Amino acid sequence: MDVKYADLLLDYSAEVKPGDVVSIHVDTPAVGLARALVRGALERDAVPRLHLAYPELNEDIVRLAGASYVASEPDVERFEVERADAWVRVAAPTNRRALQGVDPARLGALEARMQEVQALRVRDTRWVSTLYPTAAGAQDAGMGLDDFEAFTLGAMHLFDDDPQAAWRALSARQAALVERLSQADEVRIEAEGTDLTLRVGGRTWVNSDGKRNMPSGEVFTGPIETSAEGTVHFDVPSFVAGQEVRDVRLRFEAGVVVEASAGVGEALLLERLEADAGARRLGEIGIGTNNQIDRPTGSTLFDEKIGGTVHLALGRSYTNTGGVNESRIHWDLIRDLRSGGRISLDGAVFQENGVFRG
Amino acid sequence: MDVKYADLLLDYSAEVKPGDVVSIHVDTPAVGLARALVRGALERDAVPRLHLAYPELNEDIVRLAGASYVASEPDVERFEVERADAWVRVAAPTNRRALQGVDPARLGALEARMQEVQALRVRDTRWVSTLYPTAAGAQDAGMGLDDFEAFTLGAMHLFDDDPQAAWRALSARQAALVERLSQADEVRIEAEGTDLTLRVGGRTWVNSDGKRNMPSGEVFTGPIETSAEGTVHFDVPSFVAGQEVRDVRLRFEAGVVVEASAGVGEALLLERLEADAGARRLGEIGIGTNNQIDRPTGSTLFDEKIGGTVHLALGRSYTNTGGVNESRIHWDLIRDLRSGGRISLDGAVFQENGVFRG
Repeated sequence: MDVKYADLLLDYSAEVKPGDVVSIHVDTPAVGLARALVRGALERDAVPRLHLAYPELNEDIVRLAGASYVASEPDVERFEVERADAWVRVAAPTNRRALQGVDPARLGALEARMQEVQALRVRDTRWVSTLYPTAAGAQDAGMGLDDFEAFTLGAMHLFDDDPQAAWRALSARQAALVERLSQADEVRIEAEGTDLTLRVGGRTWVNSDGKRNMPSGEVFTGPIETSAEGTVHFDVPSFVAGQEVRDVRLRFEAGVVVEASAGVGEALLLERLEADAGARRLGEIGIGTNNQIDRPTGSTLFDEKIGGTVHLALGRSYTNTGGVNESRIHWDLIRDLRSGGRISLDGAVFQENGVFRG
Repeated sequence: MDVKYADLLLDYSAEVKPGDVVSIHVDTPAVGLARALVRGALERDAVPRLHLAYPELNEDIVRLAGASYVASEPDVERFEVERADAWVRVAAPTNRRALQGVDPARLGALEARMQEVQALRVRDTRWVSTLYPTAAGAQDAGMGLDDFEAFTLGAMHLFDDDPQAAWRALSARQAALVERLSQADEVRIEAEGTDLTLRVGGRTWVNSDGKRNMPSGEVFTGPIETSAEGTVHFDVPSFVAGQEVRDVRLRFEAGVVVEASAGVGEALLLERLEADAGARRLGEIGIGTNNQIDRPTGSTLFDEKIGGTVHLALGRSYTNTGGVNESRIHWDLIRDLRSGGRISLDGAVFQENGVFRG
């Protein structure tokens, strides 16, 4: 399966060609996939550059880094990303609460240190980010590991004879949604505790079809930064910096969060909103389309793709949408509309109770 | 033990100070030591940069790299080494014959690709290279893993209360040898099948006391490149590029190998001698002083330090000796003098049957 997984990431997602320089970042629990990626890149006459991280590496850095580390330039990392054609990131966590209790300011300083490199990676490489199934991921999803593997790898179509064909079919379905959305200006989201409008006229909707995220299954854009008005209740739990945040409620005026609360993790929510000026504005509205992902698992990569959900991200927008919001955070918050909710475009129903009305 | 091992490498060998950039290259079987090195560097207010390699990574590259890889510049690697203050390399092999059967020309091309980066690392960083005990290393040594761990970690003085004190004591003993050797010009080595002279006048003898190699215990210099005359039989087996080479016999004229044979691995020997112009000349003469290393284990790092041995390296010299021989190879070949042999300096006996006469 590691070879089939690597083939999908290299050929379909990152579109690796002969001569490409491919940076490969993998956590050690997925070392078999790391090896398949390196071998696959070499077999395609590409130049792989492997970075394996032991599971606690980021935790060690966040907890132990001294002043010299925090103040250091990530010069080698920038040099590398400037020369990379493709970038493959495989997360394989062993403890998704590893950063619990870390000083948020410290975390923020280390995020800020890497902000430019991350932006260059997203802007200038054919990148793909995926989640390898581990016991920690299964635990958060409330599943045994075998079931979680079946769920995650199934959502990537890796049990299909031709995974690429499945992704091309999803891409075609999403292209029709993008065409409809591109004609809209006002987007209204209604559900219990939720009545939010925002404007997207002139912005570009992106067909996220398994190239930058694996799995994917969403269409998204960057809303006009001053447009969000109203209230929203996110009923899908979110995990950020090793902490759970539940039942986030936000009120927007002229694009800015003016009221915020959470049922669980409110202190973290309020802290994240103070990250910088862009953290109180929306960088993204995304609509999940992947019906193979049918329940939340605690991983944003998967949860935001659930068919019948909508998500809004606080912070940084993707520049390919036309969005211009800048921030060191990009935090996706998800609303499930399947049990009652509606997305309208300029007053016409687009999706109701999780089903597209076309 | 990993923390004590890391402390010795960071504090004694690489002399890591606050603000240092420390590149840490570790094979995954030693991931516990890798973590101790990263944490130790962070605790010393240094900036670690970790490179973990799965055990077959080099084999995969050597066997599968295409034309693009071979022709690619190691630009990121050079950029990194130019910015590194210290460099820690931990080998932890799982198969020391992994490169068996590889085309030597291919291996040579990949070695040549990294030659400049390796030279910069040796010249410009406080580097240290060590061997972590693995089952593969134990197998070559003909020991069980527990015994091999006791042997290797014991040779690093890691069971001592104060490992650094033991290394400082060895350093002082070697300083006396260096003082005597520095007054000599002609070095003559005699043993069965061996009568070789070379000249070292004006060259610098290096006290290798556990800083660049862990363990160490040798003094070495670069002989005058045109000086070697006579014959030598190396009776300690050597492993290079995944192959065993035994009973190497060389005859030198005016510093150049003019006859060469081996009991095992002769084809490899002859191929290595053709690597480049410098491969037929000596880059090093080293004298082992570490009595804690009392038998060959198939690892050059250990074998060349055996108290009572002498070794000569074909190829590249270390520039800090004053040696000027250049080559992409540096191959240490070892002669055990304990069962009968002599090193003389300008005609006076310096070591006989493995014992220094001072």
